[in-house]
Parts: sequence; C-alpha cells; structure tokens
Amino acid sequence: MELRDMTRQELEAFAAAQQKEYDRIDALGLEINMARGKPCPKQLDASEALFKDVYSVASYIDDDGLDTRNYGGLYGIEAARAFFGELLDMPSKNVIVGGSASLQLMYDFLAQCCLSGIGGCVPWSQQPGAKFLCVVPGYDRHFAITEYLGLEMVNVPILEDGPDMDLVEELVKDARVKGMFCVPKYSNPDGITYSDAVVQRLARLEPAAKDFRVIWDNAYLVHDLYDEGDKLLNIFTEAAKYGHEDYFVEFASTSKITFAGAGISCVCASDANIAAIGKRMYYQIISFDKMNQLRHVRAIPDMAALKAHMRRHADILRPKFDAVLEVLESELSGLGIARWHKPMGGYFIGLKVDVGSAKYAGVLCKDAGLTLTNVGAAFPYGFDPEDCEIRIAPSYPSEDDLRLATHLLCTAVKLAAARELLK
Amino acid sequence: MELRDMTRQELEAFAAAQQKEYDRIDALGLEINMARGKPCPKQLDASEALFKDVYSVASYIDDDGLDTRNYGGLYGIEAARAFFGELLDMPSKNVIVGGSASLQLMYDFLAQCCLSGIGGCVPWSQQPGAKFLCVVPGYDRHFAITEYLGLEMVNVPILEDGPDMDLVEELVKDARVKGMFCVPKYSNPDGITYSDAVVQRLARLEPAAKDFRVIWDNAYLVHDLYDEGDKLLNIFTEAAKYGHEDYFVEFASTSKITFAGAGISCVCASDANIAAIGKRMYYQIISFDKMNQLRHVRAIPDMAALKAHMRRHADILRPKFDAVLEVLESELSGLGIARWHKPMGGYFIGLKVDVGSAKYAGVLCKDAGLTLTNVGAAFPYGFDPEDCEIRIAPSYPSEDDLRLATHLLCTAVKLAAARELLK
Repeated sequence: MELRDMTRQELEAFAAAQQKEYDRIDALGLEINMARGKPCPKQLDASEALFKDVYSVASYIDDDGLDTRNYGGLYGIEAARAFFGELLDMPSKNVIVGGSASLQLMYDFLAQCCLSGIGGCVPWSQQPGAKFLCVVPGYDRHFAITEYLGLEMVNVPILEDGPDMDLVEELVKDARVKGMFCVPKYSNPDGITYSDAVVQRLARLEPAAKDFRVIWDNAYLVHDLYDEGDKLLNIFTEAAKYGHEDYFVEFASTSKITFAGAGISCVCASDANIAAIGKRMYYQIISFDKMNQLRHVRAIPDMAALKAHMRRHADILRPKFDAVLEVLESELSGLGIARWHKPMGGYFIGLKVDVGSAKYAGVLCKDAGLTLTNVGAAFPYGFDPEDCEIRIAPSYPSEDDLRLATHLLCTAVKLAAARELLK
Repeated sequence: MELRDMTRQELEAFAAAQQKEYDRIDALGLEINMARGKPCPKQLDASEALFKDVYSVASYIDDDGLDTRNYGGLYGIEAARAFFGELLDMPSKNVIVGGSASLQLMYDFLAQCCLSGIGGCVPWSQQPGAKFLCVVPGYDRHFAITEYLGLEMVNVPILEDGPDMDLVEELVKDARVKGMFCVPKYSNPDGITYSDAVVQRLARLEPAAKDFRVIWDNAYLVHDLYDEGDKLLNIFTEAAKYGHEDYFVEFASTSKITFAGAGISCVCASDANIAAIGKRMYYQIISFDKMNQLRHVRAIPDMAALKAHMRRHADILRPKFDAVLEVLESELSGLGIARWHKPMGGYFIGLKVDVGSAKYAGVLCKDAGLTLTNVGAAFPYGFDPEDCEIRIAPSYPSEDDLRLATHLLCTAVKLAAARELLK
C-alpha cells in the first residue's frame, strides 16, 4: 500500500515500526561510508596485477624512440594518444593525454576560458553574468568548479533519456550561457545514458554564445556492469554534421579503469580547441608523467585487453549493485515514496525520495553511522530544490555492509516520509 | 692580446683565422643540441636503478595506512611532504606535493593570483598595469608564463651575489609590482647563488602591494657539482623576522634528481598561502599521483640516500661542465670579449659576450649544426637589451660533443666579435 493511501492511524503505526527498526540498527554502531564513487581494494588489486609485468620491463623508451623519463612530449606519448583515440573513436591528433586526473584537465580548461577566453572571445571573467548549464542531479565536483570560478549555474533537469532538451534549446538563446556539464553515459548519479535523439539535439544546438563549450565528461564510457552495455553516439561525429565540433570538449580517464589516484587522463577536442588548450599547456607544463603513460599502454595494449579488464571490474561491482537494488526493491517498491533507475553501468544509483525528505533521511543515516554523499551535493550550490535526491555509491563497501547500509537507508527514507506525511 | 687593443690589420687577420676554423667545423656537419637543461640518459639510468627495488614492493599502502592507488590525499602523502619539508628545512604542514612538474605548480599559482587574487586582494587580471620583476638573465619559461598571463615584465639585472637589490627596493614601492621570479641557488643561466645579504634584503622588502609574491624557484637546491656546494639561507626563516612569510612561495622538484618527466614536485609556503593554494587545488584535482610519491620516498628514504644519489649525478655532470669550462678558458680568456661565472652547481653556464654580438654568434653556431637556447630567451619578451647572453647547457651531450660544440661556440663568438669591431 502506498503511504499516501494510508489512514493517519496506519501511517502512525508504520512510522512507529520504522522508528523501532531504526533504533535497532542505530544500536549496532555502524561505520559505513558510501559517500564517494571510490573503487574498492579488489578493483585496485586487479589493476595492479596488470602492471606487474610492466614494472619489470627494462626500457622506458617508447615505440617511437622517446625516452619517457626525460622532458618533452607535451601532448603525451603517441601510444597513449592512440589508446584514448581508439577508445573515444577519434583521431589521436585530437587527443592530449594528461596526468592522473581528468578533473584537473576540466578545471584547467574552464579556468583558461575564464582568464584568457576561448574561440577568440572575451574572457568569461570579463563577461558580466556568464552562466553555465548544469544537468541535475549531477556531479558535485563539476558544480564546485563553476561556483569557484564565479560562473552562475542554471539547473537543467535530467529526464529518462538525458537532459531536458526543450529547456536547453531555450536557454542557449541567451549569449551569457557559456556552456554545460554533461556526463553522457551512465550519468552521475542516475546512471542514465543520453539517447541518440538527445545527443543529436545537443549536436544541433545553435547557442547564441560563440564561446559556448560543453564539458562532455565521458567518465564511465567502458564501465558496463552487464554484458550488454548502453550505447552512446560519438558527439563529434554528430556535431561535425553542423560544423559544431568546437562546442564540445570531451574528457576521459583511467581513474576507474586502473588506479583512481594514479591513472592517466585525456582531453579530446576539435583542432581549434586542441590548439588553444595546447597553447596554454605550453606555458603550464613541460610534459605530464610519460612513464606512467607508457606503463598504461603496456599494461593495456589494446581494446581487447581493456574489455577483458573491465569485465573483471564488472564482476566485482555487479554483485554490489545487485545487493543495493535488491534491498531497494524489496523495501521501497509499492510505497509510492521513492524511485530509482536501474543503471547498466557507472558508479552510482540515484534514489529519488518523492515527499521531499531526502535531507532528513540523510541525517538519520548519518546519526546511525552511514556516511552518504551530502544530500543536496548533486545540485549547484548544494541546494536540491525538491529535497529528493540521495546518491548511493556501492563500489567501496563490502556486499554485507551494502545490504545493511541500504536497509538502514530504506528505513530512514520510510521513517522520514511517514513523518513528513504526518505533519 | 685583447681584441680592442688590436690594430685593424691584426683584427682582420684574427677574423680570417676564425673564419677558416669556422668553415672547417661547418664542413663536419655536426648535429649537437645544447638548448635545454635536459638530464642525459646516464643520469636517468642512475635514477632508474634506485626505483628497481621499489617496483617489486608488493604494497602501495603507505606508512600511514593510505592506499596510494585510490582517491584522496590532496596535499600529497605525508612521507613525501616530510621529504620535501626536510629538504627545504620547513615543517611538512607548509608543503603540498604535486605531480611531475613544479612549473605546473608555479603556473597554477600565478594563474590563481590573476583569476581569483591572493591575500584577499583584487585579482591581478583586474589590476591595470600589474607588473612582475624578472631577474635577468633568467629562466625563459618563467617569463613565458607572465607574458601569457598578461603581466608586464620589468628587468632586474643579476649581479655577482644575486639580483640588484637597490633596484628591487626602489621598484617594489610601486603597488603595481606584484612579484618577482628568483632562482636563488645556482641561478639559471649564470649559476649564481644569492648571498646571505641579498636573501636578507629580500626578506626585509616592504612592497607597496600587499599581494606581492616572490616565486622562489629552488630548482637546483641539492644540485652541487663539487663536494663543497654553495649555501643558501632559508628565505622563510629570514622573512619570519619581519612577518613577511606571505611574500614568498617556494617551489622544488625531483625533475633533476630522479626523472625529468616523471618526478614529484612541491610548493612550500606560509600557512595563509598554503590555505589559498589548497583551496584552489580542492576544486582542481582530487589528488596528484600518490603512487609515484610513494615510489619516490621509498627510492630515496632519507637525506643520506639523497646526498649519495646527487653525488652520482655530480660525477656524471662535473666532467661535462669541466670540459666546457676548459675550452672557454683556453679559447676566450684574455681576449676581452667574453666573461662567465664558474658555477658550483646547477645546469648551466652563462656566457656573456661583451661586444653585443650574441645573436650573430648564435646564428653562426646554428648554421654549423649546434643548437643553443635561442639567444635572447633568457630575457622577458626574448629581448636581450645588450645582445650579450648565451646559455650553455652541458648536461645532455657527450664530453666529446661538448668539447667540439664549445670550440665551435668560441670560434663563433670570436668571429662575431671581430666582425663587430671591424664595422
């Protein structure tokens, strides 16, 4: 029975039962952290096994004769550029390989747009009221960057097949709108992959701002949980049909393929954007760590090796996601108080609490020893206007802990919803 | 006999002899590159030997229990912060450990000052006519950053014991002067170490700008060529006497200790500056490559190991420097056309051509197959007002090549000077 259909008496009894269960769990003194999409040690061990043989290779000279130990190679070693090029289905000339974090490449690009401008336009920091579209719920660290850089953020809700494109098409008529954050495959936190129609509408966009740039953060492009993963169109192929390649800048990394803290990252963009990024990088750095780039292409020599390795990740992660989804299904379905999308990949499950009590449920969880991502963090300025989003990150805890944590979460959500409805 | 004391006839004969020798070398079809301070393969091999055992260590968990493979640890692993702290004689709380390039940490800091401001002041990019002092001759990549960031550059000549402090004290009375580049030990290119008196005067500076920041690029701090190296005062100890710690931001790296392209770097600063830098980094990156940081502290566990390793570098580099200096001494001394400082460490020898014909000598060298750093590059905007500076980088070529290259350089300098005097 849905909570809204209950009599006040039934609801009070329901709340009392949840309170009792909550108190029982609280007494266990749990300490479980589900805050971040952090790979678990087993995943890292699987990656380290890949590198074992690499470390014993005597030479750090790459196939092109470049001594990766020395200076030089601003855009990365050719083999690493080719690796990401193949991964993103783009020519390697449109790829620059960076250090351990694609976040750094994104920040540096946006900071460059703010300080020096892009596409021959005035720097964003000198354009009053410059705005950025944020697909919500989304990745908190994206929004943190734009907030820090002083760009006003505008929410665009994500629908079942990607961002609300009617709204996006309307908003980009404003020349103050400078760009947009997208996680197009297995979006953080909902695990939604943009449909072909959405990607095509994005590619066709005619923004008023000529320095409009979409941060296409393809963080989970090969991070399928099941044999059949979602398919995403190549944004550059679509954009090229309209001469819109400059509007998109794509990012990827091996943070969740090899080592979260010591992988390699890339930016992939049009010739013009690569030239602009490369120019700034020329002043910023002599080269990123090419030894690590070489180790990576030796550890993962081709796409077949990558696929095999990602299957190992899936084998570790799938049972964790399944554990969470089973508990959500068995405890929350039919109550009319929460919804979620079953993701086919990525690192998160986005739980939507319908009666606007996500924050309170989060407090209940925290008090009982379960750390979640700060409720609200998936929105610009940390403000969830409907107080409904809770992000679940199943990768790090053990399956037992996940079941317990999700049970606590469900109990908290039910208790919070019942109390809200009893108000 | 000095060239200026020669009769026209003697000078013509001298020029003809140099021309003949130049033609002879030119016919050899040399291809020697002395452009950059690039470690030679032997140096890199010596470093790689240090890391061999490290790669076979099973665990990437550091002594504090941090899994360096995963996310986290924005300021770097504690052992790496302590390593640089000991090296710079500073508490590790004032150290942030970065990626493979201290240049990146410098650029990012300066870009931050331009975009967001420092010390609570208006961003430099919004302060019309913001200037930066450049000790000349200096490091071309420093000047490239300030030029790219749109800061006006003001030359400050280096004297035998460091920058011309009378001039610096005068210039900082202008609130538009926002800072200064210093390579205080074994300066690039002259190999001059700032005297105690100069460091003390820098520490005492009373700049009109409260957001004045000295980039204290201690790139060669342990890079002695001989057993007795130069000594440099700790800038922070001196600055603390006047409450001036915020005016100095120090940078160092292992680029010329371990791997030029894959070392670890650090920024060391006052509590207030570390907080400001850390705040920006929080938005920019989750962590730099901590696995590489851990490998480094395992490869170089203490200062004794570092000292022993730097002696290996010195043993490789000293004969190269000696080769260059011997040729310079035997071919140029007594002619009154060139001077140089014999460096006790670092990576360069700065040759000063007195009669203002450095550019022409550089062209002669290039035409005969010797690539030098672009003449003029050691000055802001690539403009050497007296056309006198030639930077020699002895680290990469073999000793035989160095002798030949330096002989060619001396011949070119003599020929250019004679022609200049014959004008």
